[in-house]
Amino acid sequence: MVKVDLILTAETVVTMDSEYRIFNPGAIAVKADTIIAVGPQDDVQQHHSAGEVIDLGSRVIIPGLINAHTHVPMTLLRGLADDLRLDVWLMGYMMPVEREFVSPDFCRLGTQIACAEMIRGGVTCFADMYYFEDTVAEAAKDAGMRAICGQSILKFPTPDAESFEDSLAASRRFIEKWKDDPLIIPAVAPHAPYTCTEEILENCRDLAMEFDVPLHIHISETKGEVDDWRETYGMPVVPWVKKLGLFDAKVIAAHCVHIDEGEIHTLEHAGVGIAHNPSSNLKLASGFAPIIEMLETGLQIGIGTDGTASNNDLDMFEEIRLASFIAKTVTSDPTALPARKALEMATRMGAKALHIDHLTGSLEPGKRADLIAIDQDRTHNIPHFEREPQAVYSRLIYATKASDVQDVMVNGQWLMRDCELLTIQEEDLFPKAAQYAAKIDAFLAEREGSVLSKLIAIGGAEQEESYEVQIKVKLDDPQAVIARLEKDVFEIRRRAHYLEYDTCFRFPKPEDARLRHREDEFVNDAGEVFNVRSRLTLTGPAAEREYHNSVLLSRSRFIAPAQYSPRFYREYFKPSGEISIQKDRLRWLICFEDLEFFINIDHLLDPKIDGCFLEIKSRTWSRRDAEMKVELITTILQHLEIQDAEPVLQEYPDLVGEDN
Amino acid sequence: MVKVDLILTAETVVTMDSEYRIFNPGAIAVKADTIIAVGPQDDVQQHHSAGEVIDLGSRVIIPGLINAHTHVPMTLLRGLADDLRLDVWLMGYMMPVEREFVSPDFCRLGTQIACAEMIRGGVTCFADMYYFEDTVAEAAKDAGMRAICGQSILKFPTPDAESFEDSLAASRRFIEKWKDDPLIIPAVAPHAPYTCTEEILENCRDLAMEFDVPLHIHISETKGEVDDWRETYGMPVVPWVKKLGLFDAKVIAAHCVHIDEGEIHTLEHAGVGIAHNPSSNLKLASGFAPIIEMLETGLQIGIGTDGTASNNDLDMFEEIRLASFIAKTVTSDPTALPARKALEMATRMGAKALHIDHLTGSLEPGKRADLIAIDQDRTHNIPHFEREPQAVYSRLIYATKASDVQDVMVNGQWLMRDCELLTIQEEDLFPKAAQYAAKIDAFLAEREGSVLSKLIAIGGAEQEESYEVQIKVKLDDPQAVIARLEKDVFEIRRRAHYLEYDTCFRFPKPEDARLRHREDEFVNDAGEVFNVRSRLTLTGPAAEREYHNSVLLSRSRFIAPAQYSPRFYREYFKPSGEISIQKDRLRWLICFEDLEFFINIDHLLDPKIDGCFLEIKSRTWSRRDAEMKVELITTILQHLEIQDAEPVLQEYPDLVGEDN
Repeated sequence: MVKVDLILTAETVVTMDSEYRIFNPGAIAVKADTIIAVGPQDDVQQHHSAGEVIDLGSRVIIPGLINAHTHVPMTLLRGLADDLRLDVWLMGYMMPVEREFVSPDFCRLGTQIACAEMIRGGVTCFADMYYFEDTVAEAAKDAGMRAICGQSILKFPTPDAESFEDSLAASRRFIEKWKDDPLIIPAVAPHAPYTCTEEILENCRDLAMEFDVPLHIHISETKGEVDDWRETYGMPVVPWVKKLGLFDAKVIAAHCVHIDEGEIHTLEHAGVGIAHNPSSNLKLASGFAPIIEMLETGLQIGIGTDGTASNNDLDMFEEIRLASFIAKTVTSDPTALPARKALEMATRMGAKALHIDHLTGSLEPGKRADLIAIDQDRTHNIPHFEREPQAVYSRLIYATKASDVQDVMVNGQWLMRDCELLTIQEEDLFPKAAQYAAKIDAFLAEREGSVLSKLIAIGGAEQEESYEVQIKVKLDDPQAVIARLEKDVFEIRRRAHYLEYDTCFRFPKPEDARLRHREDEFVNDAGEVFNVRSRLTLTGPAAEREYHNSVLLSRSRFIAPAQYSPRFYREYFKPSGEISIQKDRLRWLICFEDLEFFINIDHLLDPKIDGCFLEIKSRTWSRRDAEMKVELITTILQHLEIQDAEPVLQEYPDLVGEDN
Repeated sequence: MVKVDLILTAETVVTMDSEYRIFNPGAIAVKADTIIAVGPQDDVQQHHSAGEVIDLGSRVIIPGLINAHTHVPMTLLRGLADDLRLDVWLMGYMMPVEREFVSPDFCRLGTQIACAEMIRGGVTCFADMYYFEDTVAEAAKDAGMRAICGQSILKFPTPDAESFEDSLAASRRFIEKWKDDPLIIPAVAPHAPYTCTEEILENCRDLAMEFDVPLHIHISETKGEVDDWRETYGMPVVPWVKKLGLFDAKVIAAHCVHIDEGEIHTLEHAGVGIAHNPSSNLKLASGFAPIIEMLETGLQIGIGTDGTASNNDLDMFEEIRLASFIAKTVTSDPTALPARKALEMATRMGAKALHIDHLTGSLEPGKRADLIAIDQDRTHNIPHFEREPQAVYSRLIYATKASDVQDVMVNGQWLMRDCELLTIQEEDLFPKAAQYAAKIDAFLAEREGSVLSKLIAIGGAEQEESYEVQIKVKLDDPQAVIARLEKDVFEIRRRAHYLEYDTCFRFPKPEDARLRHREDEFVNDAGEVFNVRSRLTLTGPAAEREYHNSVLLSRSRFIAPAQYSPRFYREYFKPSGEISIQKDRLRWLICFEDLEFFINIDHLLDPKIDGCFLEIKSRTWSRRDAEMKVELITTILQHLEIQDAEPVLQEYPDLVGEDN
């Protein structure tokens, strides 16, 4: 007789082990956090003595479900904005609200709500990626859940980091803190190739490999992302990240909606785990991931809910069913992704995709006791056909609801018994969540007039690099400066000549800053206009540091193609004032000491200002990079022999003054 | 002060009227079965005095959901067979089990389970099509639900009718019985164009028009159906049924997955209501219905669960969400089918699609009091954003679960209060359902060796006409008979010449009857074989009536293409014996007195039998038609001058005896 702490018995135990064994009746022996035995009830009881025996009767015990990709604090943004285009949803609502509200407190509350919802729905483990992930990890651990937690890293400033360097440093501290935790598996989470830089991805890879932790990233979620990649890099996203060596780490790739056969083989070969998110892919109209092809190639695929802002719940039963439904129709084959395989994706295969199948995913001796018990005797799930053992999978996938989950155990600890949560004070969460919603409502109502949200609402807006280094000086002798610029010390990468027609809109609220409509006429050597481009630039209020004779600005900057006339934008944005400027611009893209700078020589034509201005400008996502460039600008000015010219600190609109 | 019976108040009343009015707080005044007033709480209470005022507090009141297409007694077949190809699922499982088990008792119990599940999930009205529909109507009425009930009519024998003539007669009686019921709207329900004949459809149309009741039919559910129609009739299904005048009735067309732009316009022009069934279309891999194009054209579309055997539940919240999700991805537009529109399809527009929007579908004075109250204060549905009134639709569609429904009222009567069912004794249903499941399990286990199920399992099997008229006589002078056959009295529609190689398998169980593998070599006038066709025919045991010199058989007969060798079928079906026959067949398709007959003149080559045989054969779905043909056969024999020939009652395999 082996002594254990607990024996659980039930009419049906579905192990989801590699032989898909089902025991009727079955039993599970648990000692501390670990499963000691699983088998027929008589067998297990004959060979084990337990301090406690719990009979779950007609409930069906299965492994706890694994939510392979989510952003748990986003429960607080559930239903904030739906039925919108991705850019409007993300840049018009999610990101501005996150910038304003996401804090450790927000993340703790959001995680608690998510854990309550997931435990109620039979989820025992989830892979998360968000901000203040240390707080997410703490709240998940307090709730008793198993979680892979990854601190998001983006090239943009985030709610928890001014720069990606800060995020990387925070990720390292986070991993060091959690790496030996029994419930929390720390991970590195570069958000996506299109929101990172090569440098960020390489740093993330190194960090993940150094600590042997998973690297969690969004890959090929939308067609637009892949189209951009092909255009910019001549290849889709998967080979590009492979070339960066990203797959040397244990990667969890979320979405993978738009990948081709070659990419599927690449992912399989590299041992990348996939997180498939059917609801989110449908709700955001991202597309149908080629799940059947991936499974046939041998990829390990888990199923995830994604965040509640794009789902809008954390219901894994719905997600599994949807995965099966979609696979059938997309392949025109009703036998595709049958119930048992779909459940496998949410349990054992999901654990493999997350690189934690040594810990969880099936009911087998040696794995942690992560399990749930389900009531299948409800009106919506009767009758029960028993001639084929497979029928229980059909009931689990095609008719069971999250609300049928009765009991949940993680790591040998009960988190829910008879639908009663044991680790979370659910009722405390409601008033706090309501307070956040009220504040967010007020914030959004207030900014209804916001220029940024209106810019985004009309589409195509992209955020640009947040650090800007710039200097402007008045030039007396532009030809002499041009001659020096063309010297060997600078590598000239591009030259251009424009006529620029700017309309700068001002707004009363300082956070709306300034919106510029610019029409660039491209002039060739013969002085003829051969091309025209119109675009909008919105610059937010800047944090400004002045150096010897240059300025380092940190500010949000969005750019969008302007397909309508200045008149349209004037009427649409209703600015409080505007300034028109026409100038002639000669422009060089130079490389100096391996860094790129733009140099403009501008003649203001209307309003007319005599003489001309020289500007040196550079933009970057990296604060450190920006600081290095500030140092170099002095040297560039010396080479141009204008180091003593008086810097002009005003921008052109301020220089020429308001119209009318 | 208007006197009413009941005033309901709640923080939120979502009317789904044509202006989409929402009242916070709101109230509804009900007198008997009818809504008298809906409006702001103060207004309604000021102008009405009620015997009873019920405050539903923070629950959200919305119109009851309308399930636009289902087969409610099929709850008893839930989970019977999943993840199978349509033909295997339908002909291998559903139809055989229905033939064996579907009875008034089965339909009553199945309907009670369905009503319990639907009431729990907020459904107040459903459109049904099944067998013994009188029992379905009774059970629905007893449960207090509103229902459009249609007695299924097929060309095949059904569990409740030996022939379509019987079904049509039963439909007429059914309509006459229920046409003035306050809850039940009787309908005519020809199953589908491919399971009916033109005659059936025309009869159904006339019946529906005579009583001004809806006509409920499956249209263009699968690509195969539409491909067949194009091949056979040179047009898709919609114009074909339109030509039959079907759309002169008030049609409810279920599925409409594979319809083109022209058909959408035809349906719109004809005022046909559509029932969209996303789960069923996905689970059976039927495809994505072009919902957005239909909506843009102005079609009225409801949402249905279809039967539980292809879903596997009656959860309209899941169905609505799925309709929205799928529409977004199929059109690559996340703004497609937004939450409010999706809810409209399940309420007011659904009522229009079912031609009952004068009764239900929205909370408006004059309509019946069909409404539900939902708890939105559960963990999976918080927080609540309130800055836009639209947010309530988002919570209803993207996060509400069926289990959040608290109260249900139909026709002014409470069917559920605080999640307690008031009209159905739910616990009584469980043991009865379990008994059916056990019996069905035993039946299917028993017939695992059934030839029909095995034939169907390998695909392509089609059921043929169930009535066969046939006569066989020995001929001494075939040339003389051929000469008479070519006389003016017969219109010859087709001539053919085959060499036929038959392998007839026998089985020990009489219900397995006989399976024939036939290879037809098509011979041209020069005596050369120019084509070969192989097929399997399974004939069940026959009910036989002998006439003067012919036989009227009524038996099941399935035909399937035979893509493998006789050896394969021998090994696959494991027959207990077999007979091989080789014969030369001359075959005529003739028309005589407007009816078609086949005439064969057969020479048996191996085993060799001297002389030859003449057969006259005809098949039909109609018993009456078969009886008319029996009468005509005597006349045909007289024209051929062989009326005195001795009839041969044995079929060829019996005539030549068993091999070995």
